[in-house]
Amino acid sequence: MNNELIGTCIVAQSGGPTAVINASIYGVIRTALDDPHITKVYGAAHGIRGIIEENLYDMGKEAAYELSLLLNTPSSALGSSRYRLKDIEEDDSDYKKILEIFQKYDVRYFFYNGGNDSMDTCNKISKYMQHVGYECRIMGVPKTIDNDLYGTDHSPGFPSAARYIISTCMELYLDARVYDTPMICIVEIMGRHAGWLTASAAAATYTGFGPDLIYLPETDFDLDSFIADVKEVYDDNNGKVFIAVSEGIHDKTGKLISEYGNNDELVDAFGHKQLGGLAATLVSILKDHFHGTKIRGIEFSLLQRCASHAASQTDIEESYEAGRIAVEYAVHGITDKMVGFRRKTDEDGNYKCEIKLIDLEACANTEKKVPREWINSEGNGLRKPYIDYLLPLIQGDPKIPLQNGLPRFANLKKIKAKPPRNK
Amino acid sequence: MNNELIGTCIVAQSGGPTAVINASIYGVIRTALDDPHITKVYGAAHGIRGIIEENLYDMGKEAAYELSLLLNTPSSALGSSRYRLKDIEEDDSDYKKILEIFQKYDVRYFFYNGGNDSMDTCNKISKYMQHVGYECRIMGVPKTIDNDLYGTDHSPGFPSAARYIISTCMELYLDARVYDTPMICIVEIMGRHAGWLTASAAAATYTGFGPDLIYLPETDFDLDSFIADVKEVYDDNNGKVFIAVSEGIHDKTGKLISEYGNNDELVDAFGHKQLGGLAATLVSILKDHFHGTKIRGIEFSLLQRCASHAASQTDIEESYEAGRIAVEYAVHGITDKMVGFRRKTDEDGNYKCEIKLIDLEACANTEKKVPREWINSEGNGLRKPYIDYLLPLIQGDPKIPLQNGLPRFANLKKIKAKPPRNK
Repeated sequence: MNNELIGTCIVAQSGGPTAVINASIYGVIRTALDDPHITKVYGAAHGIRGIIEENLYDMGKEAAYELSLLLNTPSSALGSSRYRLKDIEEDDSDYKKILEIFQKYDVRYFFYNGGNDSMDTCNKISKYMQHVGYECRIMGVPKTIDNDLYGTDHSPGFPSAARYIISTCMELYLDARVYDTPMICIVEIMGRHAGWLTASAAAATYTGFGPDLIYLPETDFDLDSFIADVKEVYDDNNGKVFIAVSEGIHDKTGKLISEYGNNDELVDAFGHKQLGGLAATLVSILKDHFHGTKIRGIEFSLLQRCASHAASQTDIEESYEAGRIAVEYAVHGITDKMVGFRRKTDEDGNYKCEIKLIDLEACANTEKKVPREWINSEGNGLRKPYIDYLLPLIQGDPKIPLQNGLPRFANLKKIKAKPPRNK
Repeated sequence: MNNELIGTCIVAQSGGPTAVINASIYGVIRTALDDPHITKVYGAAHGIRGIIEENLYDMGKEAAYELSLLLNTPSSALGSSRYRLKDIEEDDSDYKKILEIFQKYDVRYFFYNGGNDSMDTCNKISKYMQHVGYECRIMGVPKTIDNDLYGTDHSPGFPSAARYIISTCMELYLDARVYDTPMICIVEIMGRHAGWLTASAAAATYTGFGPDLIYLPETDFDLDSFIADVKEVYDDNNGKVFIAVSEGIHDKTGKLISEYGNNDELVDAFGHKQLGGLAATLVSILKDHFHGTKIRGIEFSLLQRCASHAASQTDIEESYEAGRIAVEYAVHGITDKMVGFRRKTDEDGNYKCEIKLIDLEACANTEKKVPREWINSEGNGLRKPYIDYLLPLIQGDPKIPLQNGLPRFANLKKIKAKPPRNK
């Protein structure tokens, strides 16, 4: 293996953003800028599209301090994309364009920061480059609040979103109980296929201040059982019920519960079809069973995936490390892998996180779910092993740089890159 | 004036909770427990109702450490109430009952922690006790995220809610711009009559990461101007528009904009009348003007008033001080006042907060609005003086006690009080 591959690198981000995805690209950018094998560091605008459209930023032109602020700046600083590469048998034009850009800019390293779909993209590009014999080391740097990436103990971004959800659920628990009248509060949490994030609300329950009932997409949701569950808590608790639901909960036929409320005939006062979210749908359903009770639906919406003010310092550090080590491995000859985490416990019982490598191919096609045995038999709560899994990941307040007492986010210049002169 | 009034005290909370309302009652309880004039400290459950229904807790039975956790525990630990005392000419039974309880428990001090309505309650009780010649010193301890209390530079609770809104708006600004496609994002912020809290989003804008347009109830909202404003930002900004609106915005006839979307004919798939919030209404309106553009409405809902994890340390300390000083003044003979704040600037230009006293009568009947000259002439943004007003109030990260890395909230025993033996 040629350990002395010299050339430029591209880093790009894809999929939904997180509070710490920029910590990972900072790990890549800082390490790549400092490594003698890498002659230039380019950031691609809006994921793979930035490569195809030759929209690259010269990261070496950014001030070092400004780059360091990426550690605490949420969302994807380079811009994201939902663009999907076609299958190569179907249409290879994107692949040819990427190869052309790689050649033009002498790109020998490519770091792609994303979730399942991004690992799929990464894998396709890697296989294509191997196929055409263009030497380029390609590494996936994981991120997803959904925590559904295969082969890694957990995914960067998940712990910070979980930490936000735990704090917020604890606070809402107290707020929703402040009056001496019945109140049902339903919070809707992201996660279409995997319930890891919704499950994190169980850590709030574990402190005594959290949801009474938690429903994940890992089990089938049954409306009658749900209503019975709510009635039981209502009766036991003076009419106070706090419920957390994953946006992806579905019945045994696979139909999403959020679609129960859809009605093609139904248009609002402005003539638009009404599309209530899951929380709104469940509020409507419960109204018939709890007449006169205040029922409130709250969607955490985008807030849960960008709340850098509530990020986990452990997550920030691990996210940075994932980016840093991807560059280290690549310059030492590794390619075609996603960086992942292995959990270790030291002799004092303390959590330790080790790096492992996973084949891109495997990551691209597998979704990791919450183990069924971590969910209680009723399918409305989490068991202790889940809490034990989660708690080490969410430790530590973030150290947020401030200006006038407000967060100081990175302000990148994003100077358009030129191809290297000798090409 | 009799400076040596000896007896018990009652503290109670009312109205919507805040992230720091418990810091204020901790100021009252801790100081009262330590003061030799005060023989017992009772907490009334759910505001004035706890007195009328003789539902009192003995705060002296709580562990000192547990009480100290109130500094960082959101919502109203004693429970709140929206109960309104009747006018005494109409029905004096509540007043008689309160007097009976005050006599039975030898209550000589009453501290009521709330907003405008609570100051009105406080004032009515105070006037009644004076009228019947029952000596009792009655002090209002302010709280409200709305910041609309008369006579005080600002209200405890507002800075913490504002700090949460600023952080969250900064984060959302970045999240909503992550894709290279148009996106209009509308956030709905609490405040029916006064726009102080919505205005705080302007501090996010001031950092470069905040709403493009901000609408308060202090000005009339005109739908055509609004659509023109949005179009202008949309065209200037590659289709990215970020808007903050106060729930109480209204047109020049006084009609709430949130009611524009109501339609008595409109029922959802479950047969319930649809009641979209303001954000949902504006999303529907904009859909007709921005076809195919992603438009997202986000309601901060209860999250903005209970986010202790994002509280302002300045606010926590001032809230505690308001409670502490209320007891100090009362035992020194003051009654019939609300504690308020006067802003001072020291010789180095640093913010200082001094205590002042305001007549309960004045507080009860006046609402403080954002000065018109702090709002821009178009009525869609804030001027610099507002930012200068706000920034000193939101300084400092809260020092939150943790257990297993999660917030450790107060767990009060709430032991039911018995009347003093010698009564």
